[in-house]
Amino acid sequence: MFAPTYLDWNATTPLDAVVREAMLPWLDGRFGNASSRHEYGRQARAAIDEARARVAAAVGAHPTEVVFTSGGSEANNLFIKGAAALMKPGLVAVSAIEHPCVREPARQLRRQGWTLREIAVDAEGRIDDADWQATMAARPALVSVMLANNETGVLQDIDALAVQTRAAGAWMHTDAVQALGKISVDFRALGVHALTLSAHKIGGPLGAGALVLDKRVELAPLIAGGGQERGLRSGTENVAAIVGFGVACERAIARQAEEATRLAALRDELEAALRAHDVTVFSAAARRLPNTVFFAVDGIDGETLVAKLDRAGFACASGSACSSANPEPSHTLLAMGVAPDTARGAVRVSLGRDTTAGDLERFRTCFAGTLEELKNLTAMAV
Amino acid sequence: MFAPTYLDWNATTPLDAVVREAMLPWLDGRFGNASSRHEYGRQARAAIDEARARVAAAVGAHPTEVVFTSGGSEANNLFIKGAAALMKPGLVAVSAIEHPCVREPARQLRRQGWTLREIAVDAEGRIDDADWQATMAARPALVSVMLANNETGVLQDIDALAVQTRAAGAWMHTDAVQALGKISVDFRALGVHALTLSAHKIGGPLGAGALVLDKRVELAPLIAGGGQERGLRSGTENVAAIVGFGVACERAIARQAEEATRLAALRDELEAALRAHDVTVFSAAARRLPNTVFFAVDGIDGETLVAKLDRAGFACASGSACSSANPEPSHTLLAMGVAPDTARGAVRVSLGRDTTAGDLERFRTCFAGTLEELKNLTAMAV
Repeated sequence: MFAPTYLDWNATTPLDAVVREAMLPWLDGRFGNASSRHEYGRQARAAIDEARARVAAAVGAHPTEVVFTSGGSEANNLFIKGAAALMKPGLVAVSAIEHPCVREPARQLRRQGWTLREIAVDAEGRIDDADWQATMAARPALVSVMLANNETGVLQDIDALAVQTRAAGAWMHTDAVQALGKISVDFRALGVHALTLSAHKIGGPLGAGALVLDKRVELAPLIAGGGQERGLRSGTENVAAIVGFGVACERAIARQAEEATRLAALRDELEAALRAHDVTVFSAAARRLPNTVFFAVDGIDGETLVAKLDRAGFACASGSACSSANPEPSHTLLAMGVAPDTARGAVRVSLGRDTTAGDLERFRTCFAGTLEELKNLTAMAV
Repeated sequence: MFAPTYLDWNATTPLDAVVREAMLPWLDGRFGNASSRHEYGRQARAAIDEARARVAAAVGAHPTEVVFTSGGSEANNLFIKGAAALMKPGLVAVSAIEHPCVREPARQLRRQGWTLREIAVDAEGRIDDADWQATMAARPALVSVMLANNETGVLQDIDALAVQTRAAGAWMHTDAVQALGKISVDFRALGVHALTLSAHKIGGPLGAGALVLDKRVELAPLIAGGGQERGLRSGTENVAAIVGFGVACERAIARQAEEATRLAALRDELEAALRAHDVTVFSAAARRLPNTVFFAVDGIDGETLVAKLDRAGFACASGSACSSANPEPSHTLLAMGVAPDTARGAVRVSLGRDTTAGDLERFRTCFAGTLEELKNLTAMAV
């Protein structure tokens, strides 16, 4: 089997072997519906409770604040739509660089009479202070700003933004899907009302995520029915995925600090090498995740470059994975004021726990060769 | 490990060994985000396409009509809320015996100005003809009637109901979660606009379901974002669960006819034995699933009986699993006009592919002994 070197850890991650071991019994003899009152059901319920405690501990929350969902997209939609459903239509404000699973539900609210404001960012991808103050002055009811951007890796000062949002009387939500396991994430220190997590970004399985939710926030469920998750998310719980999520949280938190140092060093070395090739690294002056490099080469198409690297044995992204089906340039870069032509050249390399210095050495060599080839082709075409 | 005999197959099913084998590679080296354009992503996309074809084939639909969700509850909510979101508020009609994941979203619509009508059933749990005609006369916009009830196993004449619903100008949905694999389910023959399926009821994993949807029906997504599933269900696809769902469909369909005959014979034998103990079998005169026995013993509490059977090594249900956290008597039985006291005595035994004649022989012996014990206790208490 052709197995390219994986440099797309912000899109998804391979399942941690320890996580897989913890899940396997739940794909075998342990198969109960957690709502069943017999032995099988009770075992499933106990496993979910244990996972809930692990996820809560990973972000310094109380287990009763964790609402399991099928993933980050569902958790983001649950907060935005679920909170709005119980309020009078007002102003919803989300940053201009949110993942589509925050932006789109916010846009959908317009159908119910809400006004949407997209908060501007500066050239580095940080929340623009003037636009933020104007947003607060406009008295929003719901605010959502991501903790770490999936493309640039830029971190926002969520704790400071949350203080102001609370003072303005609004609910503050942050999508922490890309932050968990890469930086320290503390629900109380961030001061938000709600925070989104996803298992598959941290070595856990696809199919599990969570909305960590201050109990004072009332939400209407997106998926109503049997009343699971305190009535906030019905549906038979995906026990194996939830168990895996819990273990993945524990593992990711345990190695977070050490991994952050290791990956930042690899990242810095990679960026230094890239700069030798007329490469623009986006958001280089901002506080960023330690594992993410988002860059473009002048005059080179990102899609083409990524396709060539793929064939040469390196899996990286030309934009965020979720919008890769969409040929539009990155909305994050456009919001930062990057010209569409430059944005179309963007390539994202994101590192993870299996990434070694050797991988990146081979990548740099391959990248240099591929770039040379593409420049020659371009020169010939001109 | 204490492993009671499992007689609760309508709540969930153990994972089929062949399904598990098909899933395992996706919990190991194959881990791509299906939206990624590199090798890992393409492999995931191809696996999802293959699963989509299998699920479609199981119900005689076209692959493009299959919208994958995280399960049956989400698919039911997607249809009810997603269709309503794009219509002017009107009348939504659902049967009085729907699973809560149909009833609750229908109730939520009232907040947006919709009127809800719960269609009555007769004493056997079949749609009441007079109330059905009155419902049609009231010009509903959305109608949902389940194909097979999770508690009684009663089957409805969905094809006939769909003809009338179409004539009345409404969209017709059926929750076929309990029907798939137990009876033949054909999307075209049923004539519905939408149909819900779930993997974990047919030997597949938790975490996957589908809404099979006529393309003429426009829905607003419940989970908006990256635009997966033709924009109808965003979120990174749970590849392992979707792959498992596809294989589970294929397996369930291949053995459906043979299993139906085998389980109906076991069920009939079990019911005959139960009747020797003053047991009322609900819906006995109706067309039912071949695997489900829902019954009550006069003067015996169902919860107590199920708890005793559990300790004696038999896992069955005192109501539908999803509402087992709720001590209310079965809403299905109440809708059938069963007295609350009798309904509180209800026990559900549901059989599946691992159930043997020997299991039921041992169950009958245990049941007779447990009943004797409980009757003596009751006599002593009086």
